Amino acid sequence: MEIVRVVLSGLPGKMATKVKEKVLGCDDFELLPCALTSKRHDSERLDGIELYGTQRRNEFLEDTEKHRPFIIVDYTTPDAVNENAEFYCTSGIPFVMGTTGGDREKLIECVEGSDICAVIAPNMAKQIVGLMAMFEYAATNFPGLFEGYGLEIVESHQSTKKDTSGTAKAMVKYFNKLGIPFNIDDIQKIRDPEKQREIGVPEEYLAGHGWHTYKLTSPDRTVYFEFTHNVNGRDIYALGTLDAIKYLHRKMEEGSKGRAYSMIDVLKGI
Amino acid sequence: MEIVRVVLSGLPGKMATKVKEKVLGCDDFELLPCALTSKRHDSERLDGIELYGTQRRNEFLEDTEKHRPFIIVDYTTPDAVNENAEFYCTSGIPFVMGTTGGDREKLIECVEGSDICAVIAPNMAKQIVGLMAMFEYAATNFPGLFEGYGLEIVESHQSTKKDTSGTAKAMVKYFNKLGIPFNIDDIQKIRDPEKQREIGVPEEYLAGHGWHTYKLTSPDRTVYFEFTHNVNGRDIYALGTLDAIKYLHRKMEEGSKGRAYSMIDVLKGI
Repeated sequence: MEIVRVVLSGLPGKMATKVKEKVLGCDDFELLPCALTSKRHDSERLDGIELYGTQRRNEFLEDTEKHRPFIIVDYTTPDAVNENAEFYCTSGIPFVMGTTGGDREKLIECVEGSDICAVIAPNMAKQIVGLMAMFEYAATNFPGLFEGYGLEIVESHQSTKKDTSGTAKAMVKYFNKLGIPFNIDDIQKIRDPEKQREIGVPEEYLAGHGWHTYKLTSPDRTVYFEFTHNVNGRDIYALGTLDAIKYLHRKMEEGSKGRAYSMIDVLKGI
Repeated sequence: MEIVRVVLSGLPGKMATKVKEKVLGCDDFELLPCALTSKRHDSERLDGIELYGTQRRNEFLEDTEKHRPFIIVDYTTPDAVNENAEFYCTSGIPFVMGTTGGDREKLIECVEGSDICAVIAPNMAKQIVGLMAMFEYAATNFPGLFEGYGLEIVESHQSTKKDTSGTAKAMVKYFNKLGIPFNIDDIQKIRDPEKQREIGVPEEYLAGHGWHTYKLTSPDRTVYFEFTHNVNGRDIYALGTLDAIKYLHRKMEEGSKGRAYSMIDVLKGI
C-alpha cells in the first residue's frame, strides 16, 4: 500500500494526540507538519507541527497545497463539526470525522454534495461497532427473541463523564426491539472511582475508560446471558481511526465521490 | 390461534418428557394419547399415552387417522432420525426434528421430496440459536474484526457428556473467520462436579446444564470482551420446540409443502 498523508484537526486534544501517536508509529502513514485547530491554539507548534487556528484556514490551504492528496482526521469539538466539514468539502479534502455532535444530517448532506468522500463515525472502536451491528441485526431479524427476559445494564466511565454512555443507550434500543421493555434511566452508571476500583478498573484507567455489561435472565431464571465490553484508554478508537483512513484512501483512489461512509462500511471493507 | 394437535416421538426419553410437560401446560396444544417410540418401550402406557414401538408404525397410522392433522415432535436417537423422517414424510405428517445425528442431508432431501414441511433443528434453544446467528452474521460481514485478539473458551456440562459442546465448536468457526486462530482442542471442558460448584452451577443442575463463556482480549490488553450463555436444565429447548410447532403449523396452514425449515426461520417468524 502506498503511504497515506494525514493531517490532524484538533491537536492538542486528547484523541487527536492519541491518533498522532498511532500514525507516527505506523509506516503506512506520513503525518504532515501542519494541523487545523481552534483559535486559541493558533500558531502554536507541537513536535514540529504548526497549528492553524480556524481563522487561518486559507493560509492552511495554501501551505498544504503541495502535499495533496491527503486526508484530514477531525477530533475537534461538537460546535466545529459542520463548519469544519464544509471547509473540507469545498476545499476537496477527504476527511474522517471522529468528532461527535453538530448537525449530523447537514454533515452527511455536505459530503454528498461534494467531490470528496468521508468516513463519519461517532464511535471509531471497530470491535464495539461490530458488536452493536450484531445486535442491530438480531433486533431487525429476530424481534422479540428475548421476550420475558430480565435485563440489567451497568456502565462505568471516568468521573468527568456526566451523561449516560451513548453505546449503552443504543444497546437499549436493540434490547427493546428484542422484546425487553427497558428504560434508559435504568442503566446503572458508575462514576465513583472507589466503586470502579471494586469492579476492577485498573488504577491507571480510572480517568479514561468505558466498561459495559448487559445481563439477561430468562423468566424462569434457568437461562442467563451476559455480554461485556470493557475499554481502557483510547487506543481502540485511535486504531479504528487508522483503519478508517486507509479505507477512505482506497475509496478516493477508486474514484468514489460524494459518499459518506460509516464505520460499518469500514468493517465490511467493501 | 386454533389448537394444534401434537404427537411425541421418543417418550419416555428426557427431552420428549420435558416437551410433554410444556405441551400439557399450554392451552395452544392438545397432546394426542398415542406416541411413537423405540421397540423396547412398545405397548407401554404413560399417563394415558399409548406407546407404539417402531414395529407397529402402521397400527399407529391407523389409530391416529381420526386425529389428523397433527404434528409430530421427534426427540429419539441418532440411529432413528432418517427412518422416522421417511415414515413421517411418506405418511404426510409434518414434524419437528429435535433429534441430532443421522444423515442430515438425506433428512432434508426426504422433506423436500414430500408433501409436508418440517422444522429441523439440532438446537431448539431460540436465544442461543439467535446468538449464534449474530456471530455468523459478524463472521460473514466483518471478517477479521477481532484480528490479533486472544481467545479463551470455557464450557461446562454434566459429567456424562463426553464430547465437546457443539455450540462452542460452532462458535470457534465464527471466531476463526473473525480473525482469531483458535483450535477446538483448546476449548476448556469442565466435567468435574466439584469445579462446576466452584463456578456457580446450582446443585440441582449439576446433572443437566450447558454453560459457555468466551473471553476476548485485545493484543495490547486494553480491550476486553466477554460473552456468556448459561443454560440450566432443558426448559429452554422445550420452549423453543413449542415455538417450532406453532411455526410449522402456520406454514402447513399456509399451504407450504416440501420445505425444511431451520430454527433461524422460526426466529425470523416469516
